[in-house]
Amino acid sequence: MFETKLTRLLKIRYPIFQAPMAGGPTTPELVAAVSNAGGLGNLGAGYLTPEQLRSTIHMIRQLTDQPFGVNLFVPEQPIESEEAIDQMTAYLNQYRIELGIATNPLLPKFSESFEEQVQVLLEEKISVFSFTFGIPPHDVIQAMKERGTVIIGTATTVEEAKCLEVAGVDAVVAQGSEAGGHRGTFLKNNSDAQIGTIALVPQIVDHVSIPVIASGGIMDGRGLVASLTLGAAAIQMGTAFLACPESGAHATYKQKILSANEDATEITRVYSGKAARGIRTKFINDMHHYSGTIPAYPIQNAMTRDIRQAAAKSNNPEYLSLWAGQGLRLANDGSAAAIVKQTIDQAYVLVKAMEKTLQEEG
Amino acid sequence: MFETKLTRLLKIRYPIFQAPMAGGPTTPELVAAVSNAGGLGNLGAGYLTPEQLRSTIHMIRQLTDQPFGVNLFVPEQPIESEEAIDQMTAYLNQYRIELGIATNPLLPKFSESFEEQVQVLLEEKISVFSFTFGIPPHDVIQAMKERGTVIIGTATTVEEAKCLEVAGVDAVVAQGSEAGGHRGTFLKNNSDAQIGTIALVPQIVDHVSIPVIASGGIMDGRGLVASLTLGAAAIQMGTAFLACPESGAHATYKQKILSANEDATEITRVYSGKAARGIRTKFINDMHHYSGTIPAYPIQNAMTRDIRQAAAKSNNPEYLSLWAGQGLRLANDGSAAAIVKQTIDQAYVLVKAMEKTLQEEG
Repeated sequence: MFETKLTRLLKIRYPIFQAPMAGGPTTPELVAAVSNAGGLGNLGAGYLTPEQLRSTIHMIRQLTDQPFGVNLFVPEQPIESEEAIDQMTAYLNQYRIELGIATNPLLPKFSESFEEQVQVLLEEKISVFSFTFGIPPHDVIQAMKERGTVIIGTATTVEEAKCLEVAGVDAVVAQGSEAGGHRGTFLKNNSDAQIGTIALVPQIVDHVSIPVIASGGIMDGRGLVASLTLGAAAIQMGTAFLACPESGAHATYKQKILSANEDATEITRVYSGKAARGIRTKFINDMHHYSGTIPAYPIQNAMTRDIRQAAAKSNNPEYLSLWAGQGLRLANDGSAAAIVKQTIDQAYVLVKAMEKTLQEEG
Repeated sequence: MFETKLTRLLKIRYPIFQAPMAGGPTTPELVAAVSNAGGLGNLGAGYLTPEQLRSTIHMIRQLTDQPFGVNLFVPEQPIESEEAIDQMTAYLNQYRIELGIATNPLLPKFSESFEEQVQVLLEEKISVFSFTFGIPPHDVIQAMKERGTVIIGTATTVEEAKCLEVAGVDAVVAQGSEAGGHRGTFLKNNSDAQIGTIALVPQIVDHVSIPVIASGGIMDGRGLVASLTLGAAAIQMGTAFLACPESGAHATYKQKILSANEDATEITRVYSGKAARGIRTKFINDMHHYSGTIPAYPIQNAMTRDIRQAAAKSNNPEYLSLWAGQGLRLANDGSAAAIVKQTIDQAYVLVKAMEKTLQEEG
C-alpha cells in the first residue's frame, strides 16, 4: 500500500531509506538488514578508501540480494590558511594531552579521491548512487546512467533541488533542518539554509518533477504518512537506525542516542569544518569560545580525526561527533528489520484510521 | 471529517487556527473571517492597551458570532543595562536620521500591563485565551477556567509542554522552528530550542495528554493532513494568512510575503530583543555587525518602535519587522475564507486518495 513511483523504480517494497551515515554506523549488516526488510539500505562511503569501498560492497552483497545504495561526498576545494591550521593544531593539543596521544601530529590526508571512489562504483554496477555536498561532474552522472544506476542528489533548498534535476538526477533527498549529520547545502547563497522538513518538502515537490525523498526528524510511521502526505515519494531515516544492533555506531554514541532529548542537538562546524547536526558535547561547548577561524571541510575533519579516534578508544563521548537529528526521543534499540516493520505497521494503522473517519461520515 | 476532540471543545468546524500575529496583521476582519469560515480566528493582543483590547474584541463580535481566541504575552522582567540602552540609542540614531525622525527619543513605555489586559479578557468572557513567552500566574488560569474560557499555551520543547499541562492549560501549541514571529520558548535551558515541526509534534504528543496544535511551516491541506497524522488535533497557520486582504500587514510587508522564497528568513533578536523569525532586511544584516549588547525584550522592542513606524510610513521594508515562517513559497493573497476552504478541500482530496490506494490493494 505504500508503493510509489520511486519504490517501483528502485524495485524495493517500502518507501523507507536508511540514511547513509558515513564514519561507521552504516555497516554491511545494517545496510543489508534494511534492504532485506524491504527498505533501501545505504552505505555512507564518503570516508572509505577505494579498497574499503569495494570490499564493503562485496560484504553487503554477501548479506543481501536486494538493491542498496552507496553515498559519496562531492569534493570541495577549501582554501588552506596556514595560520588557521597552525592555530587549530595548537588549540587541539590540549585535548591530545588529555587523551594521551601525540601532540602536533603531521597533517593527515584530507579526503579520499572522489574519482577513484566513483570508479569502484562504476565497476561494481551498484543499484543506487547518492551523493551530497554538491553535484558530481556531468560525465560521472552519464556513466552511472549508462550502467543503469539510479542517481539521487541531496538538496536543502528549492533552488538546489532544481539544480539537481537539471543535472539529471532521478530523485532528490529533501534534507530538512531536523536532520542529523552534515548539511547537504551546496549553493553558496543558501549557506545557512535550515528549512524544516514540513516546510521544505511541499515546496520542493511543487518545483521539481522527479520524486522527492523526505529526510529530517522522521522516526516512525507517523513521519512516514506525514511525509507521503506532503508529497514525498519516500522517507529517509538516520537517527532511527543509529542505535540498532546492526549499526556500527560506538556503544557510548548509541547510549547517548537512546537517552538524549529533542533539544540536545545543535548545528556545528567544529568537528569537520562543515555544518552538521549533533548532540552537544564538551568539545562543541568549548569551541564556542574559540577565537580563531575553523578550517574548512575537509581540513578540520582530518585535523580532529586523531582526537575522535582516541575518544572512541577511551569511551569518552565528549570528544566524539555524535551526529543526530531532532527526533531523538523516538529512537529505540530494536533491530533494523523491526524498525522497518514498526514504521510500516504504524503507517498502515494511521491510514486505516483515516479511512474509517471518512466512512463514518458517509 | 476533520473533527477532533479539540474542535468539539472549541465548538469550531475545522481544526484550523489563524495564528495570533501581534502588531497589526490580526485585524478584527481577519479574526472574524477565519472564525466565520469555520476555523478559529485569533487576535494577537500582546501590544494592545486595555482600551484597545476591549474595543477590538467588540469589533470582532460585531463581525462574527463564532468563537475566537485572544493571545497575550506573558510578561518578563528584563535586567535593564543603562550602558546597553545608551549604546543602542546612539546606534539607532543613524536610522532615525535616514528616516527623518527625532534622534535620542525618550525611552518609551516598554510594554502594556498584563494584569490589566487579563482583566479585560475576564470581563469580556472570551471563548479562548492563548498565551506565549511563559505561563501566567495560577490565579489567572483559575479565573479563566471559572468563566468557561478554553486556555491554550505555547511550547517549543517537550519539557515546556509538560510544564504547561501541569499548569492546567486545555491544549498546547507546539511551535516548530519553521514558525514566523516570536519564539515562544520560556524555559531558560531550552533557550535555543529550534525543533522542526515534524520532529516536535509527535514527541510532544507522546508526553502530554492534552490536545496539541501543530504550528510552523504549515501552509495548506498537505500540512493539515501531515500534522493530524503526526498526532496533532489542529494546525495553526500564520504566514498563510498574512497576505490576505483582511490582514492588517503593511502593503510592502504583504508584497514581501508573496515574493520571498523559503530561505529568505532568519531568527533574529534585533527588532525586539527576543528571538523571532522574519524575512532578512538591511536592519537585520546591519545588526550582525553590532558590537554592543542588544537589550532584552521588551526593551529593544520599545526602542525600535519609532523606527519601524517611520519605515512603515515611508513604505520602506528594510527597517520593518517582516515576521514570516519558512513556508513562504506557498503563500497567496486569497481571502481568509478561501484559504480555509482550500486547506480543507485539499486535505479531503489527500485523504480520499489514500483511501483509494487502500481499496485498490483490497
